[in-house]
Amino acid sequence: MSDPEIVDGGHEGRVEGPVLVVGAGLIGASIGLALRRADVEVLLEDDSPTVLQEAIYRGAGKMAEPGPAPSVVVVAVPPDAASGEIARAAERFPGATITDTTSVKGLILDEAIEAGADAHRLVGGHPMAGREISGPEAARADLFDDRLWILTPTGHEGQEHVARVRRLVATCGAQVLAMDPAEHDAAVALVSHVPQIVASSLAAALVDEPADRIQIAGTGLTDTTRIAGSDPQLWTQILRANAGPVSGVLEGVTRRLQQILDALTPDEHPTARHGGPIDRGQVAPVTEVLDRGRQGHARIPGKHGATSIRYAIVPVMVEDKPGELARLFVAAGDLGVNLEDVRIEHVLGRPSGLVDLFVRPDVSEILAAGLAQAGFDVRA
Amino acid sequence: MSDPEIVDGGHEGRVEGPVLVVGAGLIGASIGLALRRADVEVLLEDDSPTVLQEAIYRGAGKMAEPGPAPSVVVVAVPPDAASGEIARAAERFPGATITDTTSVKGLILDEAIEAGADAHRLVGGHPMAGREISGPEAARADLFDDRLWILTPTGHEGQEHVARVRRLVATCGAQVLAMDPAEHDAAVALVSHVPQIVASSLAAALVDEPADRIQIAGTGLTDTTRIAGSDPQLWTQILRANAGPVSGVLEGVTRRLQQILDALTPDEHPTARHGGPIDRGQVAPVTEVLDRGRQGHARIPGKHGATSIRYAIVPVMVEDKPGELARLFVAAGDLGVNLEDVRIEHVLGRPSGLVDLFVRPDVSEILAAGLAQAGFDVRA
Repeated sequence: MSDPEIVDGGHEGRVEGPVLVVGAGLIGASIGLALRRADVEVLLEDDSPTVLQEAIYRGAGKMAEPGPAPSVVVVAVPPDAASGEIARAAERFPGATITDTTSVKGLILDEAIEAGADAHRLVGGHPMAGREISGPEAARADLFDDRLWILTPTGHEGQEHVARVRRLVATCGAQVLAMDPAEHDAAVALVSHVPQIVASSLAAALVDEPADRIQIAGTGLTDTTRIAGSDPQLWTQILRANAGPVSGVLEGVTRRLQQILDALTPDEHPTARHGGPIDRGQVAPVTEVLDRGRQGHARIPGKHGATSIRYAIVPVMVEDKPGELARLFVAAGDLGVNLEDVRIEHVLGRPSGLVDLFVRPDVSEILAAGLAQAGFDVRA
Repeated sequence: MSDPEIVDGGHEGRVEGPVLVVGAGLIGASIGLALRRADVEVLLEDDSPTVLQEAIYRGAGKMAEPGPAPSVVVVAVPPDAASGEIARAAERFPGATITDTTSVKGLILDEAIEAGADAHRLVGGHPMAGREISGPEAARADLFDDRLWILTPTGHEGQEHVARVRRLVATCGAQVLAMDPAEHDAAVALVSHVPQIVASSLAAALVDEPADRIQIAGTGLTDTTRIAGSDPQLWTQILRANAGPVSGVLEGVTRRLQQILDALTPDEHPTARHGGPIDRGQVAPVTEVLDRGRQGHARIPGKHGATSIRYAIVPVMVEDKPGELARLFVAAGDLGVNLEDVRIEHVLGRPSGLVDLFVRPDVSEILAAGLAQAGFDVRA
């Protein structure tokens, strides 16, 4: 396993055009917009004339036509089509660097090479950005700004091709993280693919329940199921392509749920209408899973990832009307304190006026005292 | 099943003291602080002298001592101790109204009545508020402001006792929602207890994984596991007390995970090192679960719950330095637009400057146009 390494690509210069983007959906069209922003020539292709026209209309590039061969081809199609399109691009443009944006790497790259793609020119990629909506109409030039873009060299690529894809990533505004393909697939199974399955399987429980029960949901349910709105067709392809690593993680999660389920099922037939109380001795496996969950939770880096800074929270009660938040933020700015994050608490029926200000721990007292002095209702 | 009904308790007046709070942890001490804020006399008890002293020191009430009997006793102890304490309170104070704050109602109330509590004076309750930290040092007078506080009358209570608990809730700043005890337990199993199990079981997968893999986590993993930091001992008691309803929902979730796991496991022994590609025909059950998950997700009300207003998002790119957010919020305030929520996007390595402003759909165009005119980089 290679150590991931974040490389700030800002000094690597602009990628040379023309860049051919195959697949003009959210990711492909956003890459086009990002490259056009840097005045790189972009050619677009898509099986769907409607999608292609929409992407062109939005300024993501122009229709691919006979002319100079592309220096780079970016294959940005769903997983089921990716290896075929990569191999086809390598065949059509024998001098071009080929990269892709598929969210699974090992199987896709292997299949592409088996299908005839030239490993010397192929540099697999996975931009870690997306939106909850899809298609070129959701594309944004800034989609990749400051985001991670994982590259997965296999050791067979020529350095000039790797350098070219690095310039592509830098031109799109993203940061390169280099990982081994198998390591990438294990990581996304853990932090993305299995969470998707878990969120969907939980949200599916809501389908047949009375609305009155769902009504009392707080942020626990909302957060746990937030990603369950994703596209089932696309996600089926992702999970199928990463079946091995996903099964490994999913097997553990399922086993733990079954462990809790067994512990919460009475040994005897229930006598009381609640199913009867469960013996205290019987629930030790429940505590064990919850304990491990707490340990695992503690390993997730802070919101700013690699920096792992923990923020302090300064809660302030404000009136829920125009201008109040502004007044609060002006006061924080006047104190020279940078707000790292802001969260407004909500409850059923109406918004609460409680605002949590996230700041670096070393300035939290300055902020709390300063805001209190300025007349704010600080609830620290 | 009774229809839940939200009752604004604001007009019901202040509860009459003294109120005895048994258990001076986060919830008990916060109730004390909320009642003291309204000048209601509060007596405190706790098995732990340290906890009791801390709650008193923070102003949540005074040490219980011989004197006038309490008008209401609030039992705010962990689930394993709740039914015993409720019965004991009913016996000690024959004239008092008894309520509790346990997050499971059916089993606890039945056990309390079996243990001798007078059903006529017992009104079960469950304030829907909490924090990720516990103990009286985390208590806040405003913990219940604008929150839901579920009451679960069984039909055996005297109306004067129900009215008294409603006044208690109103004095604490919360809104009453009346539900049948069994219906309450089914609802919290669905929206709180099973999500807790799922989040913990997922987060537990992180314990033995290399930090490099966890490092690339985005908001998908963070949101899905946010509640996994909860107290394992307390949650074991909650799950044990609500084992029946929890098992019912959990069985379905586990079955769906197993269904996906089966579909992602190759029929034959793997030949390729990724475990080999899975047949497209074999993954239909995966799509089925993801589809149901999307349907279930769509049933969750908006952040403001009952109002079910959907907000429009106006994304704005700002520089990450003191004062920039203030400038943005002042501009929004100047336009007379109320911000319902704010989300600042983050990425590994450094904060992104993308701020999502959540507003009512009818004012989003006004805000976007006004901010753009004021020189802001609106990315709508």
